[in-house]
Amino acid sequence: MSGGLTGRPTDAPTAPASVAGLLRDIADVGRDATRGGYSRFVYDDGETTLREWFVAEAERRSLEVETDRNGALWAWRHGTGGATGGPGGTAGPGAAVVTGSHLDSVPGGGAYDGPLGVASAFAAVDLLDARGVRSERPLAVVAFPEEEGARFGVACLGSRLLAGAITPDRARALTDADGLTFAEVAARAGLDVDRIGPDPARLAAIGAFVELHVEQGRGLVDLGEPVAVGSAILGHGRWRFSVTGQGNHAGTTLMLDRRDPMVAAAGIVLAAREVAIDHAGARATVGRVQPVPGGTNVIASRVDVWLDARHPDDAVTAAVVAEIHRRAVAVAEAEGCEVVLVEESYGGTVHFDDGLRARLTDVLPQAPVLDTGAGHDAGVLASVVPTAMLFTRNPTGVSHSPEESVEDDDAQTGAVALADVLESLLLRPQEPIVS
Amino acid sequence: MSGGLTGRPTDAPTAPASVAGLLRDIADVGRDATRGGYSRFVYDDGETTLREWFVAEAERRSLEVETDRNGALWAWRHGTGGATGGPGGTAGPGAAVVTGSHLDSVPGGGAYDGPLGVASAFAAVDLLDARGVRSERPLAVVAFPEEEGARFGVACLGSRLLAGAITPDRARALTDADGLTFAEVAARAGLDVDRIGPDPARLAAIGAFVELHVEQGRGLVDLGEPVAVGSAILGHGRWRFSVTGQGNHAGTTLMLDRRDPMVAAAGIVLAAREVAIDHAGARATVGRVQPVPGGTNVIASRVDVWLDARHPDDAVTAAVVAEIHRRAVAVAEAEGCEVVLVEESYGGTVHFDDGLRARLTDVLPQAPVLDTGAGHDAGVLASVVPTAMLFTRNPTGVSHSPEESVEDDDAQTGAVALADVLESLLLRPQEPIVS
Repeated sequence: MSGGLTGRPTDAPTAPASVAGLLRDIADVGRDATRGGYSRFVYDDGETTLREWFVAEAERRSLEVETDRNGALWAWRHGTGGATGGPGGTAGPGAAVVTGSHLDSVPGGGAYDGPLGVASAFAAVDLLDARGVRSERPLAVVAFPEEEGARFGVACLGSRLLAGAITPDRARALTDADGLTFAEVAARAGLDVDRIGPDPARLAAIGAFVELHVEQGRGLVDLGEPVAVGSAILGHGRWRFSVTGQGNHAGTTLMLDRRDPMVAAAGIVLAAREVAIDHAGARATVGRVQPVPGGTNVIASRVDVWLDARHPDDAVTAAVVAEIHRRAVAVAEAEGCEVVLVEESYGGTVHFDDGLRARLTDVLPQAPVLDTGAGHDAGVLASVVPTAMLFTRNPTGVSHSPEESVEDDDAQTGAVALADVLESLLLRPQEPIVS
Repeated sequence: MSGGLTGRPTDAPTAPASVAGLLRDIADVGRDATRGGYSRFVYDDGETTLREWFVAEAERRSLEVETDRNGALWAWRHGTGGATGGPGGTAGPGAAVVTGSHLDSVPGGGAYDGPLGVASAFAAVDLLDARGVRSERPLAVVAFPEEEGARFGVACLGSRLLAGAITPDRARALTDADGLTFAEVAARAGLDVDRIGPDPARLAAIGAFVELHVEQGRGLVDLGEPVAVGSAILGHGRWRFSVTGQGNHAGTTLMLDRRDPMVAAAGIVLAAREVAIDHAGARATVGRVQPVPGGTNVIASRVDVWLDARHPDDAVTAAVVAEIHRRAVAVAEAEGCEVVLVEESYGGTVHFDDGLRARLTDVLPQAPVLDTGAGHDAGVLASVVPTAMLFTRNPTGVSHSPEESVEDDDAQTGAVALADVLESLLLRPQEPIVS
């Protein structure tokens, strides 16, 4: 599913790159001919090619690239006097300014969710270089692995490991659709999987993390603005309902003799819809269903149903899931089936750092302030470092789909806004970055 | 997923093999560690190993093995005087007696659906040899490919091609889950795919086809008998409902802004159940559902739902499918989605040859006469050659599942019954085999 990079000579002039141009170079990487759009899963061919692109873009800018213990890529521009960031860096605690996003996608995702933030970061570095903006603060562009959780089922896996929001043992044991563990796949990609996990020294060096991301709704379209400042990420999680019945032959088993978990699974899908509508502001989605064995002429023995549920108020999210579970048990019992509920991941609502957000709105007075229902690495890191987000307008409002879209002009406006924010953070060290 | 054969030396004594012993030799082939039971798909490692086993068992019995133009394996015991069967055989039209079944399985199927009929056929050949039963009639053991349709979606593909019940062009274009065409896969397995299709000369040589199969219900358990004679196969088919909505982000899309095909798909699953219950004797099953793209945090853009529907009266099957379709359109419209219905395969109710069935009940007066809701190669061949079936008791009544079961004693009783039937067909050539 992976095409190659559209190469540029590495001795190309160092004029500021456009975001659109950067994204054009990877437009053929990881296309999904079946689903449309892109399927770039952590450590698969496509995502690996994007990592190579990241390294090449970093080296083109003379940034120093390192892979952290959890597989994230960091491209460092050292501070004046050679002050280095990262764990044990010479710039000191809280000095580094970090921006970036992720390279992986959902199955059949769009071109922007993830790569826009990384491409905008490189473009912003170019703008800072062109403006001659330097300070003693190191600046890094980062790309976190497995943000979507599309391969191993836990979103923001790289940032969670970094922040200690998932145990290394649990991460190592996660499996993909082929039954391969994260430990096996990451080791094959060159990671020392015994050393994955929290990295407090790396976090301590960071003074601010700013993630730019394509907007995943119509907020900016409706407001007629190209760029927004993020305020909060809705609490959300993933749950798996495993419904077990009696596998049997589709032709020989009378209707009233059946214990068919697919019928119960259908009831769970409808219950999720109804319960979410009953709770204003809640979202509940079943986007993935896996019948076992999954044959046309076979009554399934088990059906796994994945639920994604979100609400600004964590108590409401919990109530929504509890009510869906209550109804799932009822529909399963009516079908003679059993249901087991497993929480695969959960994160409460995240409010970004007030002081850092005030700095962003100060630099970008035109930008509206929006929250988002989507999860991000920024949401994980917000609990351990001062964190903020910028959103770039998406004309379709559609995301996690090939129809996701960004105009070239808006992409560039976003990169300029990001450069403005980074310039402020780099050049006003006398002010505390955070409140 | 494929283990090896438990080999026996090829110079082993030619005492009659037991069915249980034959099946033990392949008990490790094609096990499915994920679903349980066996996944043996046409031309995969497991099914290919079973083909090698078939050839070895045939050669152990000095049977002459050939692969027909459609990939079925035929092991011939020539008639007295060297009279050969098959197309252009010297025994003449209608002389050959054929028995056998298939080697492939559904995903996560049992050990008996298919291989029991092949193993019983080899065991029956041994019994005939031990009894000294020979005549000028050639006898063949056959194994048809892709009976379950688990890989390419059309059940009984090998027998359909042989009988002209599917066009070669359509068969060549069928694709598996990896997007490989039947033409590519069959060619890789050594078939000349330009030559697949109807083989009237081969069919003309056959006087009778008798397929022994594990029973896929509780008929024999309830009657307390080990073996039944088949009377009919219920009409059945496969239909695909493709529901198209709007793919989007699970977190950012408000519930009332959605056009979610998974919600409509759930409605179709429940409609199928309700409509089948409303039509006495009907069976309607959704065992396979495929959301696209299938990510947990993604509202699907399309969901494919496969329906298996059956009834003894073809008009009722048609009415059941039409009513499910009517309801599917209604639930899809209510969700702002569109639904397209495709018939993937259909076969009307098959009544086996009356004269041949009378011969079987004459030879096996104790055996009850049962119909079946399951499809079989015998159901396809019944339209072109005189065909009959035997069923061996299944204590669980469960099929297409690892819980499918046959007692060793019943398996051997089934082989003896098959040998009795074959002996009758071979030794009474003065009577017409068919009415």
